[in-house]
Amino acid sequence: MTVEEIKDYATAFKKSMWSPVIDLLNLRGRLAIEKNQEVIDSQMPSKTATAVAHPNIAFIKYWGNINHELRIPTNGSISMNLASLETRTTVTFEESLDKDVLLLNNEPATDAAVTRVSQLLNRVREVAGIDVHASVESNNNFPTGAGIASSASAFAALALAASRAAGLNSDSDELSRLARTGSGSASRSVPGGFVEWYAGEDHETSYANSIAAPEHWDLVDCVAIVSDVHKRTGSTQGHQSADSSLLQSARVADAPRRLELCRQALLEKDFHNFAEVVELDNNLMHAVMMTSKPPLIYWQPATLAVMDAVQEWRSNGLEACYTIDAGPNVHVICTADDSQKVQEKLLKIEGVKKVLTAKPGGPAHLVG
Amino acid sequence: MTVEEIKDYATAFKKSMWSPVIDLLNLRGRLAIEKNQEVIDSQMPSKTATAVAHPNIAFIKYWGNINHELRIPTNGSISMNLASLETRTTVTFEESLDKDVLLLNNEPATDAAVTRVSQLLNRVREVAGIDVHASVESNNNFPTGAGIASSASAFAALALAASRAAGLNSDSDELSRLARTGSGSASRSVPGGFVEWYAGEDHETSYANSIAAPEHWDLVDCVAIVSDVHKRTGSTQGHQSADSSLLQSARVADAPRRLELCRQALLEKDFHNFAEVVELDNNLMHAVMMTSKPPLIYWQPATLAVMDAVQEWRSNGLEACYTIDAGPNVHVICTADDSQKVQEKLLKIEGVKKVLTAKPGGPAHLVG
Repeated sequence: MTVEEIKDYATAFKKSMWSPVIDLLNLRGRLAIEKNQEVIDSQMPSKTATAVAHPNIAFIKYWGNINHELRIPTNGSISMNLASLETRTTVTFEESLDKDVLLLNNEPATDAAVTRVSQLLNRVREVAGIDVHASVESNNNFPTGAGIASSASAFAALALAASRAAGLNSDSDELSRLARTGSGSASRSVPGGFVEWYAGEDHETSYANSIAAPEHWDLVDCVAIVSDVHKRTGSTQGHQSADSSLLQSARVADAPRRLELCRQALLEKDFHNFAEVVELDNNLMHAVMMTSKPPLIYWQPATLAVMDAVQEWRSNGLEACYTIDAGPNVHVICTADDSQKVQEKLLKIEGVKKVLTAKPGGPAHLVG
Repeated sequence: MTVEEIKDYATAFKKSMWSPVIDLLNLRGRLAIEKNQEVIDSQMPSKTATAVAHPNIAFIKYWGNINHELRIPTNGSISMNLASLETRTTVTFEESLDKDVLLLNNEPATDAAVTRVSQLLNRVREVAGIDVHASVESNNNFPTGAGIASSASAFAALALAASRAAGLNSDSDELSRLARTGSGSASRSVPGGFVEWYAGEDHETSYANSIAAPEHWDLVDCVAIVSDVHKRTGSTQGHQSADSSLLQSARVADAPRRLELCRQALLEKDFHNFAEVVELDNNLMHAVMMTSKPPLIYWQPATLAVMDAVQEWRSNGLEACYTIDAGPNVHVICTADDSQKVQEKLLKIEGVKKVLTAKPGGPAHLVG
């Protein structure tokens, strides 16, 4: 035997001697993994869930928080869900992930977006008592930058899908609270139809309820798209600047009166009173925005052209009024009877690129 | 003699018999008229006077009154007279007139305009102790509807011309008070240069003074004319609606702070601070306007385009800021160094029809 042959023999002997032990260790490892999986399965009867939620347009606006982290607003608000527009979100808790993963409209999301989603998932994991990362896939059926804020529908759908995927049976109020922590207006996309978000004073008391079903009043939101440029100052930052306007406290102090007027007008389907309070509330919010430090002026030339036209149409008998979120596009709210006329007229205004329409929409719901 | 001849003779006899008496009566009448004229002449050493006054642009705005009749404002304001623009007004008290007569830019004025002028003339007549009507001729060297309110220069020139024509030697403070009763902002067109109108609380305490001479700071007002359509709601009516906005009291309560900031920035020629407070104050006034009942939105699409552009230019180092009165045109206030650039840039903005420019102007003064 050469020295080489002796070495090879020794190596083979060692291998054969240890292999049963190695096999045994491997088996125990596999068992451990399988046992662990059973524990997780028992915690999470369905690890995946898909939910749909609609964006909403506020008639009485949300602008400013008394608690920015929990998004407890300075004043209550009233909105309508937008039926034809939706965000569809699937949440899957997966052992194999070492972090949360987010696909937005089939593209990997930015770190900032992932962080915001993870914060909501953390709340769900904490309540569900689980410690597993999730993959989240979220798609809007309306183009990003089409003038429709997607954060409301996105966080409402996320709250519902994540809660169900984690095995929680949260009710609408609880889902509304949860959605609120991701995006304030998302609290209003959880219940259906015409919705009021009670400002409250803490996490428990700040949530939204339906005040009328979608079928209650056949209003139409005709969204005049005047720009698809992304807004320069996002809402989260904007809400934080609201208190820098010396007009904010007067706007907030009067909010209960406007909420009452709007609620009544909605319940009575009184378009005249509805239009007056919706436009006043809108102008109050934009007054606060443009007097904040730094000033936020979201309107563009065509925004004003639409506002002016809508006022004139209404004075001539058309049932239409305007409201504008933190961007340049104008939501023209009208009765179904007048919606065709409104669309045609809007498209004739210089600077209006297109018009999306939506009827009152239902609540966030599970699908698939 | 025929019957006809007898009649003619009788008529001739009557005439010749009465003619000395008639002559005597005529003479007494003439003497009476001449004597009366002497009395008037002694009351009115110069029955006619011509004055020139400039319009002004407010940096801290006047919007709302605590006394509408006397135009005692809710808050003090600061402005700059506009040198190249002027109203020239001649007032002549004439025995022969049975009412006040007003020619505006060589056209007979409306009854409403005559009434407003007569109200100021009545104050003058009362103080001067005279009871004679006046003819008033007033001409602007800038086109009506060019976006420059002419009421300030018009009532400042009228106050001065009428007072002097009535033989009064009112000082600047008194003329400022008088001008204020015709048009609030006219009180600021009486003194020269950079002017502060002390709100006061009654006729005696509400008047304007110069805070710096025209030469103090070589600012230029570049007025971007975007529309020559007459405003839908005049200022007088607008001031009366200010209190219908729930934001007005917050705007007014903070006015002393803004006045101080503006005064300091002017005295120190600190353009950065000046621009910030001027735009804030402007936005506060328009916030009140657009939340009044009914809402007053004076901006047009091109107004917003100019506001947006000016903010961008300033962020890139140009010394320019915007301010807008109760109309759609934008006053872009800039330093003389940057005024050429500002004019060129303004003319490139869609919707800007032309640009007028004015440097700081002097006080209302007598001419001719």
